[in-house]
Amino acid sequence: MSEPAFTPAATAGPVKIVGTGLLGTSIGLALCAAGVEVWLSDASPVALALARDMGAGVPYTSGEPALVVVATPPDVTPATVLSELAAHEHAVVTDVASVKSLIAEDVLAQAGAAQAPRYIGSHPMAGRERSGAAAADIDLFVGRPWVIVSTPHSSGAARAAIRNLALDVSAVPVTLDGNSHDEAVALVSHVPQIAASLVAARLTEASPEALSLAGQGVRDVTRIAASAPQLWAAILAGNARHVAAALRALREDVDTLVEALELAEAQGPMAPGALRDLVDAIARGNAGVARIPGKHGGAPRRYATVVVVVPDEPGRLGELFSAVGDIGVNIEDLQLEHSAGAPVGMAHLAVVPSAAAVLEAGLTERGWRVVAE
Amino acid sequence: MSEPAFTPAATAGPVKIVGTGLLGTSIGLALCAAGVEVWLSDASPVALALARDMGAGVPYTSGEPALVVVATPPDVTPATVLSELAAHEHAVVTDVASVKSLIAEDVLAQAGAAQAPRYIGSHPMAGRERSGAAAADIDLFVGRPWVIVSTPHSSGAARAAIRNLALDVSAVPVTLDGNSHDEAVALVSHVPQIAASLVAARLTEASPEALSLAGQGVRDVTRIAASAPQLWAAILAGNARHVAAALRALREDVDTLVEALELAEAQGPMAPGALRDLVDAIARGNAGVARIPGKHGGAPRRYATVVVVVPDEPGRLGELFSAVGDIGVNIEDLQLEHSAGAPVGMAHLAVVPSAAAVLEAGLTERGWRVVAE
Repeated sequence: MSEPAFTPAATAGPVKIVGTGLLGTSIGLALCAAGVEVWLSDASPVALALARDMGAGVPYTSGEPALVVVATPPDVTPATVLSELAAHEHAVVTDVASVKSLIAEDVLAQAGAAQAPRYIGSHPMAGRERSGAAAADIDLFVGRPWVIVSTPHSSGAARAAIRNLALDVSAVPVTLDGNSHDEAVALVSHVPQIAASLVAARLTEASPEALSLAGQGVRDVTRIAASAPQLWAAILAGNARHVAAALRALREDVDTLVEALELAEAQGPMAPGALRDLVDAIARGNAGVARIPGKHGGAPRRYATVVVVVPDEPGRLGELFSAVGDIGVNIEDLQLEHSAGAPVGMAHLAVVPSAAAVLEAGLTERGWRVVAE
Repeated sequence: MSEPAFTPAATAGPVKIVGTGLLGTSIGLALCAAGVEVWLSDASPVALALARDMGAGVPYTSGEPALVVVATPPDVTPATVLSELAAHEHAVVTDVASVKSLIAEDVLAQAGAAQAPRYIGSHPMAGRERSGAAAADIDLFVGRPWVIVSTPHSSGAARAAIRNLALDVSAVPVTLDGNSHDEAVALVSHVPQIAASLVAARLTEASPEALSLAGQGVRDVTRIAASAPQLWAAILAGNARHVAAALRALREDVDTLVEALELAEAQGPMAPGALRDLVDAIARGNAGVARIPGKHGGAPRRYATVVVVVPDEPGRLGELFSAVGDIGVNIEDLQLEHSAGAPVGMAHLAVVPSAAAVLEAGLTERGWRVVAE
């Protein structure tokens, strides 16, 4: 495997980055590597020096940037966008906060007629558990959606500048208006976060024996419940209208289910209507999950899954990798499953249906135990 | 890798299996392979013949089994257990339904004093998306918890018989009383299923653009929303009391969050009290998810994660497997991540923290691109 050839940046610099935390510093690293001149600014001299030392750009002193990226905490974003629009009268200004409508409203309420066309919002959908310049990475945005959120006033030049910026950091540009963006992230990010947290919160009351029965299902549902509380509270509060609407709809479904379950509790599982409402809730979930795009944004593809027992001994998974490499079948997806207390793990290898028999035979021939999915 | 040496079965046969669907046939396959005499019975002659043809045992004609496993659909389980207790006056009788209290109540209400000690419940926590004898697998139970649910009347001999049965099919025996079992599965299985279904149901209203922003989080939360509606309706109705109680508690949390969000919507994100309630909900989720046991049922272990870009070309993942095998680092867990529309996938390789640098250096040396988690 060789490194990709160097591609010159589409972004016209200089680029001024205001706020050298995780996102700002990562953008600086990627742009510098692409040959763009990057100026850095931060209220904290330590954060600024760290970003400079990491190679994300040089501290801003004076001069006129072509593009300003505001990567401050969201609560100071609108004021920072406005002061940058005022300070640099020819620059396109964007921000990278994860909620867009509220910020655009604040900016447009105070921006002058000559300023509004130069503002455009961004939401690069990338992050890490750690924050700050020290956690920055040149590859943070590789392959991630970068949502471009124009206001009704955003100019074509502003749109082109952000599209180039997204491509220069190897992200995938996606265009949405502010309301659609905020509604979308409520459904695909904010409500799933809340559901994961609420299911996990129930586990605080579970006995150790109950927790020992936890399988892959509850682990998947609650994985993102480990997210940072203060960050998420700010995100949810900043998108309150859309999240509240989606949660109210979800609560109606909970009400229906509680009623059906109370009926089944009082009159037995065959109580008239109880099973119908329970079936309906699960069936609607079937319909929703089937709409999530598969690999490459297309319709979900169906793979065959070959499940292999992996003894928990050093090097066994490496041996499995080598065996799969030898067999030469392309693995489309894979997942490792652990059961509490079990002496073995299971590797789920997804392959195109026509390759499943080849993989299964090859693994069995090499002494691996292939089991039921 | 060589096959494990043959271990003689601990189960004393003959074993009569009533109901030759997925579970019954899989148990028969595993017991036959261990040298136990297995007799099969099913109301459907076709299902019975298929299980026999697969090698799960011989059709029952007459004779006295030492153990009867009732693996019928749950709605006919109590009646079947009672008729088997009556038909075979020395046999231990168990059932494998996924809800235990309701079935034990029904059985004990009608079982005679000489019968009750011979009944004991089981819940092997294994399944597949497909059902029926054709989907049966000798390895269905390998490494999975097999919950043994005694009633206050169950004899020591009954307990020993089921423990041996679980071990003979390579499952991990776990002992719980019926109420604890049903409460546990409500928290670690039934409520997560409902939450996944309800979050997925919201996606039926999402635009294709919104769905294109779906990342790993919502995919994980909604994976089990693809489950079978009728099967799950029966499970939820059979455990109505515990599921309703947990859902009512969850609904209280939803109420609190909707109030906080409506406050933030009306008065802005800094509305007094709104952020506090949002932080609290996420923080309680942190506490709950931290209680899920890690590998081997111990406290959760923290691994370092090395994230590698995998170009979407045939054989690339196989090459990565080979490289990891060459480097010789033990992979503790792994996950493949796909972003919609992205030309690449990311492989997340979890290793003990001390091995991360070795793996990262080895992969980089071999031309792989290692990126930020």
